[in-house]
Amino acid sequence: MPRFKLTLEYDGTPFSGWQRQTGVATVQESLEEAFADLLGEPATVWGSGRTDAGVHARGQVAHVDIAKPYKAFAIQGAINKRLRHVPISLLNVEEVSPDFHARFSATARIYEYIILNRRAPSALERTRAWWVIHPLSIEAMAEAATHLIGHHDFSSFRDSHCQASSPLKTLDVLSVEKSEGVVLIKARARSFLHHQVRNMVGTLKRVGEGVWTPEKVKEILEAKDRRCGGPTAPAEGLYLTEICY
Amino acid sequence: MPRFKLTLEYDGTPFSGWQRQTGVATVQESLEEAFADLLGEPATVWGSGRTDAGVHARGQVAHVDIAKPYKAFAIQGAINKRLRHVPISLLNVEEVSPDFHARFSATARIYEYIILNRRAPSALERTRAWWVIHPLSIEAMAEAATHLIGHHDFSSFRDSHCQASSPLKTLDVLSVEKSEGVVLIKARARSFLHHQVRNMVGTLKRVGEGVWTPEKVKEILEAKDRRCGGPTAPAEGLYLTEICY
Repeated sequence: MPRFKLTLEYDGTPFSGWQRQTGVATVQESLEEAFADLLGEPATVWGSGRTDAGVHARGQVAHVDIAKPYKAFAIQGAINKRLRHVPISLLNVEEVSPDFHARFSATARIYEYIILNRRAPSALERTRAWWVIHPLSIEAMAEAATHLIGHHDFSSFRDSHCQASSPLKTLDVLSVEKSEGVVLIKARARSFLHHQVRNMVGTLKRVGEGVWTPEKVKEILEAKDRRCGGPTAPAEGLYLTEICY
Repeated sequence: MPRFKLTLEYDGTPFSGWQRQTGVATVQESLEEAFADLLGEPATVWGSGRTDAGVHARGQVAHVDIAKPYKAFAIQGAINKRLRHVPISLLNVEEVSPDFHARFSATARIYEYIILNRRAPSALERTRAWWVIHPLSIEAMAEAATHLIGHHDFSSFRDSHCQASSPLKTLDVLSVEKSEGVVLIKARARSFLHHQVRNMVGTLKRVGEGVWTPEKVKEILEAKDRRCGGPTAPAEGLYLTEICY
């Protein structure tokens, strides 16, 4: 049965996250309903991973198997038409080998986190960024980030509900840049623990405010204890940007 | 009585435009209510000009007179706190001379228009850009724009409800740039006719699609007849970016 790779953009605001759950709106459910409507039979859409409630995506990837003889180009148009009432858009559809798996074939995941760092709250990015009023030191945040890059036990940045078998992960990239009041944090790893990016961002923000030194982040990492880390940054600043295969 | 200059950002989506009208939500009304609540008496907020329903602002300017001894910095915080339930943010407040007038002292107005030009509809910018699926030629649009720059009778781009005494305006800048699927059109003039920017954008879009040649825009301008111009581009792509004094 032909398999298709789907590249997706969505605004996470109205959704209770990616994964289908009874009684709430999810991205997966909206997609599966659109495919079921097109195909005339139930469809399962497999994501590269879950995103939490309120988290956005500019490049989430999923796959779906379609028995009927549809072309990728036609699927994109037909599904986007059926998604007009929800903020989800199929950016690309391509036929892939049947052994491609959105989750298991992924070699890296890239997230971006946006902090709006200015005195005035945001009118245009209210559900798209974390508003932080206290001026942040980007130099301190970037220095702190270097302590987290590499292969580590990330227990101090792991949510208590995390289902991963091991807290060991390899963080390839954690960069901090600032441009006109916007702080952009990029993180890249083969995979992340639950809430890892948001917990790292919450910790870096404390460093940026001067509450903690950059070296403190090394101590937090070595403590391997979630109670030592910073708060979880809010969902609205997080974007799943790209999945690499 | 001390006069304060207000610089404002707002998401135009939930508002029936800038100007106070009975029975609908407007930006001016939200601001005047916030000031009245702070001051304990009615306040009038004078804008640099109206924006239409759905049009956004990154740098609208207004002024307000305040008899009580408030500092600019305190006003910003107190008003933003009272605007938390609406997507309006006071970016800056400064005390100005009593002969400053947000509308009459303005020497130029700058607007930006954003077109999302790609096959996939937008999930993240649905109310913030005009989605145009047909690939646009930026070269043709930029060439067409040059015909509109300068002092002209802009009747072909003037809404029938326009209250300006004359259709003569001087357009200082009309530029077209493209970057990663986003077309950005910038327009600068001392003042504009009603719907002038959106009518110029609707015309440039037709040129970009190849329906009209760039030279056709010169003919449209010279016809001085709104029926010759292109359609009015939708409000959601328009941003009032800056008012110069």
